[in-house]
Amino acid sequence: MKGFGSDNHSGVHPELLKAIVSANTEHAPSYGTDEYSEKAIRLFKEKFGQQTEVFFVFNGTAANVLSLRFLTERHESILCSDVSHLNLDECGAPEFFAAKLITVKSTEGKMSLADLKASLKRKGDQHYTQSRVVSLTQPTELGTCYSLEEIRAICQWAHSEGMRVHLDGARLTNALIHLNCTFKEMTTDLGVDVVSFGGTKNGLMMGEAILVLSSDLIAEAKKKLKFIRKQAAQLPSKTRFIACQFERYLSSELYLQIAQHSCSMAQKLFEGVSAVPQVKVTATRQSNAVFATIPKPWVKHLKEKYFFYVWDESNFECRLMTSWDTQPSEIDGFVNLLKQFSETT
Amino acid sequence: MKGFGSDNHSGVHPELLKAIVSANTEHAPSYGTDEYSEKAIRLFKEKFGQQTEVFFVFNGTAANVLSLRFLTERHESILCSDVSHLNLDECGAPEFFAAKLITVKSTEGKMSLADLKASLKRKGDQHYTQSRVVSLTQPTELGTCYSLEEIRAICQWAHSEGMRVHLDGARLTNALIHLNCTFKEMTTDLGVDVVSFGGTKNGLMMGEAILVLSSDLIAEAKKKLKFIRKQAAQLPSKTRFIACQFERYLSSELYLQIAQHSCSMAQKLFEGVSAVPQVKVTATRQSNAVFATIPKPWVKHLKEKYFFYVWDESNFECRLMTSWDTQPSEIDGFVNLLKQFSETT
Amino acid sequence: MKGFGSDNHSGVHPELLKAIVSANTEHAPSYGTDEYSEKAIRLFKEKFGQQTEVFFVFNGTAANVLSLRFLTERHESILCSDVSHLNLDECGAPEFFAAKLITVKSTEGKMSLADLKASLKRKGDQHYTQSRVVSLTQPTELGTCYSLEEIRAICQWAHSEGMRVHLDGARLTNALIHLNCTFKEMTTDLGVDVVSFGGTKNGLMMGEAILVLSSDLIAEAKKKLKFIRKQAAQLPSKTRFIACQFERYLSSELYLQIAQHSCSMAQKLFEGVSAVPQVKVTATRQSNAVFATIPKPWVKHLKEKYFFYVWDESNFECRLMTSWDTQPSEIDGFVNLLKQFSETT
Amino acid sequence: MKGFGSDNHSGVHPELLKAIVSANTEHAPSYGTDEYSEKAIRLFKEKFGQQTEVFFVFNGTAANVLSLRFLTERHESILCSDVSHLNLDECGAPEFFAAKLITVKSTEGKMSLADLKASLKRKGDQHYTQSRVVSLTQPTELGTCYSLEEIRAICQWAHSEGMRVHLDGARLTNALIHLNCTFKEMTTDLGVDVVSFGGTKNGLMMGEAILVLSSDLIAEAKKKLKFIRKQAAQLPSKTRFIACQFERYLSSELYLQIAQHSCSMAQKLFEGVSAVPQVKVTATRQSNAVFATIPKPWVKHLKEKYFFYVWDESNFECRLMTSWDTQPSEIDGFVNLLKQFSETT
Repeated sequence: MKGFGSDNHSGVHPELLKAIVSANTEHAPSYGTDEYSEKAIRLFKEKFGQQTEVFFVFNGTAANVLSLRFLTERHESILCSDVSHLNLDECGAPEFFAAKLITVKSTEGKMSLADLKASLKRKGDQHYTQSRVVSLTQPTELGTCYSLEEIRAICQWAHSEGMRVHLDGARLTNALIHLNCTFKEMTTDLGVDVVSFGGTKNGLMMGEAILVLSSDLIAEAKKKLKFIRKQAAQLPSKTRFIACQFERYLSSELYLQIAQHSCSMAQKLFEGVSAVPQVKVTATRQSNAVFATIPKPWVKHLKEKYFFYVWDESNFECRLMTSWDTQPSEIDGFVNLLKQFSETT
Repeated sequence: MKGFGSDNHSGVHPELLKAIVSANTEHAPSYGTDEYSEKAIRLFKEKFGQQTEVFFVFNGTAANVLSLRFLTERHESILCSDVSHLNLDECGAPEFFAAKLITVKSTEGKMSLADLKASLKRKGDQHYTQSRVVSLTQPTELGTCYSLEEIRAICQWAHSEGMRVHLDGARLTNALIHLNCTFKEMTTDLGVDVVSFGGTKNGLMMGEAILVLSSDLIAEAKKKLKFIRKQAAQLPSKTRFIACQFERYLSSELYLQIAQHSCSMAQKLFEGVSAVPQVKVTATRQSNAVFATIPKPWVKHLKEKYFFYVWDESNFECRLMTSWDTQPSEIDGFVNLLKQFSETT
Repeated sequence: MKGFGSDNHSGVHPELLKAIVSANTEHAPSYGTDEYSEKAIRLFKEKFGQQTEVFFVFNGTAANVLSLRFLTERHESILCSDVSHLNLDECGAPEFFAAKLITVKSTEGKMSLADLKASLKRKGDQHYTQSRVVSLTQPTELGTCYSLEEIRAICQWAHSEGMRVHLDGARLTNALIHLNCTFKEMTTDLGVDVVSFGGTKNGLMMGEAILVLSSDLIAEAKKKLKFIRKQAAQLPSKTRFIACQFERYLSSELYLQIAQHSCSMAQKLFEGVSAVPQVKVTATRQSNAVFATIPKPWVKHLKEKYFFYVWDESNFECRLMTSWDTQPSEIDGFVNLLKQFSETT
Repeated sequence: MKGFGSDNHSGVHPELLKAIVSANTEHAPSYGTDEYSEKAIRLFKEKFGQQTEVFFVFNGTAANVLSLRFLTERHESILCSDVSHLNLDECGAPEFFAAKLITVKSTEGKMSLADLKASLKRKGDQHYTQSRVVSLTQPTELGTCYSLEEIRAICQWAHSEGMRVHLDGARLTNALIHLNCTFKEMTTDLGVDVVSFGGTKNGLMMGEAILVLSSDLIAEAKKKLKFIRKQAAQLPSKTRFIACQFERYLSSELYLQIAQHSCSMAQKLFEGVSAVPQVKVTATRQSNAVFATIPKPWVKHLKEKYFFYVWDESNFECRLMTSWDTQPSEIDGFVNLLKQFSETT
């Protein structure tokens, strides 16, 4: 049953599956020395800047926690939003692999610079972890996007305080659509230091990439990150099958087509849902998700036809997520159901 | 260029790739609740016993270290062979995720019960890690196999000492061919507690499984292992694409066909290589690897046509590994080269 | 310069120093097998119940984090107050040694049962750490005490949810004075599972004790805690010099005399400070601390004569702490200064 | 009962106890900002060089593992002797706090440069931990000493390979007697990077110091080590009581007097024991220990009067350790017993 559960409920985009099938010829060296890795890395450098160092890993948790481990020492800490995936959905992986999280309050998933500043405390005090990284999610867990100006200001401040900026970009490409810019304009050019670049939620079978962007981190990344990755059990042996997907994803603007589709489906869904008086949209739509409160008695019936998650059980705020394979007919069907319920209650 | 480098240089077996393509339809729940996972788990239970608990992870390092973390506490230790992958090729992952390794000397990759007994020391002494697990590799890193009697004896002794037995089975199926038995006869029936079941080196694109076999560990495995896996960044989101491969691998005896092929190719290679007087086979062949010292001047020329690894630089002992896709013609070509060198030197 | 900085600015109580000097005769076995340890443990059993298991460690951070490590696994989490020493003053030690902290809001340092209940979330959800311990501080970091009824209710609820209750008792004896009860009545009888029992802040030179109280934890404590302690670098070799202090501390009600003195000095200070109109006491006094906002211009001058800490720079809330050696004359001197400032402004 | 069990069975040297009693006046700032710490640090700088950074900790395990944690990252490793305390007697603390140990074979407790060289392997290979530290014990666990030339050669080689040298000096002062040199000549001048400087086994009640010696490590030590120490639960609050002992120990050559006494008592014991034909000394005596095999039937009777440890149960090799308080009469008594047994068997 399809629905709006998550962009990891959908399968592999046909073009990406084709890339996998094509890569399955003869032998290839393992552990990252194959030609597919080389090509994919070249494309990442094109998109994020030639200095970029790229490390493929299996999943998003790994991309996040290994990025953070690279940027922190055990006695340091990471500033992140109270609703971040890092804090709520990684089962303590950041604290296990990297360091303590210090949570900052958020509005529609975003931290303000003022709140970040207020959360940076007790520099030099040996009794307190020293904050060393700000971790942003783009788009956020609530489907909103930090503006380029916001990212720039956070990076400037963080750097002025001796901190680094990590960006959890499980769905990074979707933010390009809203901000109408390039990857480089959204990250490298603004001072973002390290990105967790998502693949799985954007049509890949599996695979994410850690991108080290800051020139002054490159030497250290080259020296350390391959060991960190291996020790963390994140070095794929048949790397070509992850790399070939990224190669295809970043070629011929496939990444933009997929993101464009997901986001326009979300916009259609947003419009349909907004038109139902009993349904209340709860977050600005700037990505491939719509958050809305739906009358409790409707939810069960809706779920019989379209799978989705109740985000907040207390008020039946639901998360409706589109994907590369969402069809307009599915949105029409869902919205029509809402309208029927609306009229009969 | 093909060769005898590693069974992870080969790609995906066509039947397994077909399974992936077939699984790519519509949506499936993520994180292990899909029907492919259910079916693959059912097959594992058929092969290893109905009590078996199965946890899919991305790679072999993960299967090993999460098995060990499940079986140990931080202040305990693990007895393993001095040449084990755990000790030499995991970049300290066991010590990071699980506990201290205590290495035991080995002959042709195998630890003797006597040496294991001598390595179990200082019970109850708070200054010394308490050994809690014996980790065997089957087949070993040198391509030999523990006999059923050896495994049984080690399990009995380990259990009598309050220890558990873990089996690193990256190429477990190959051991079936040599021992002419079933998975269950080689593991569950002998008292093996937990198995790292390999996929990637046996024709899968990627994917391994942690199998908890002992009845008295099942409740704990159900309670804890899913959290351990998630925190360790080893919970695949689109699990169906790993599970579908295992489903196919374990169906219609594909696993046996693949192992049979790899091992018979290795036997052919063994025979060819043994016939060359200047080449000396250095380990008993009981799996899909042949170890042999090759005259140093030949190695460079051989490698121009067939990739393989020099295992020990000091004496030019080389490791020649066959795979699901090794062709008789490749072996003939390699052996003919050896013969040419032999005749002209 | 004496003052109200902290109860660890004062030295060793003369009776306790005498005990150290007396213990310095001949040889004693190391690592906890000496007769002083035996006697001190006997006294702890008298005070907390015969089942109690006692583990001496060097300091309070260690007592806390090893208690928590004993009670949790790495993928679990600990509920504690947002102002707890654990969260704010251990430099990430709990996350390093034990597990993730989940902070609960507090009023005057205390968490309510309702807020604790609301913080226990997502049971069984593999993406979320499973909360396994509630950690209370008694008296709290703000000098207040949980009532016996509050502790009992939290213990009952925690146990009903499969959780354990840890009590950070760096100044536990002081709570006896306010609650007018015995150690056992405040802990074991109410269901507290493990106590970090403080020595250093109560007149000892150094030394704390982990007390495992719950009968159903004793076997596990005996099996594991000595190894956890040793691996954590917390096994004192010349243990007799820590043990002999606890032996004396718990004999002839010295612990009560010290606590009584500290608390009555704090009460005197509270009364003196309350009488000054411009000074505002900010937390109920139930231990050896007084929290009060003091006009900013006064603080510098006060500190020239009496050392103390500004707790909150934003409103000049100050923490004034008494100790076993605080003299009435010092309080009079301090209050007189306040009065002078009060009259001249 | 006195004996030759360990130098941590003896109590506190009277001069050091006097220092403690003298330090117990009024208040002192906690956590290392007291005047005793300042003075003790000044003395360490005098002895080891003005650049030296000093961090007091509670015990030897802590001094070792925090030194190693400071010098390594999690994916690196430490070369140490197979009989080192680090490997055999720290209950896995190095692997918990710092990194993997790679053991090197030893003769009379000492590693040779050749064996160290052979143990440094696979540089740059992501599957293998990168060795980053050589840890020597001086004097070794078998009571022998590395010569100045040996230390210099190991340091030179280690530095040429990008590694650091740590020295476990639980009984460092005793090595001064054998080598007839200063602390600085034995460490800083030869290139030793970090020392675990022992107190407890040399007459202190408790207390060790981490000494960072290399000029190019000082900035990093100042930045990080205080946080590492705090997070590791090794920051003493009433630091003055550890610092005052070191201040006295390093004043008026008390450290030399104590070491001289212990070593000359060991020499007397060595001579007495050597004269008994059935007793065979098994290691060169260069410190305060004598290792010798003693006929099994004698051991029980000897232990009734003088406590000591059987080091190796297989051949009844015993370790006889002298201390600051060993009396000639005790040695005479012990040797006389041996002689009696010798004559009557």
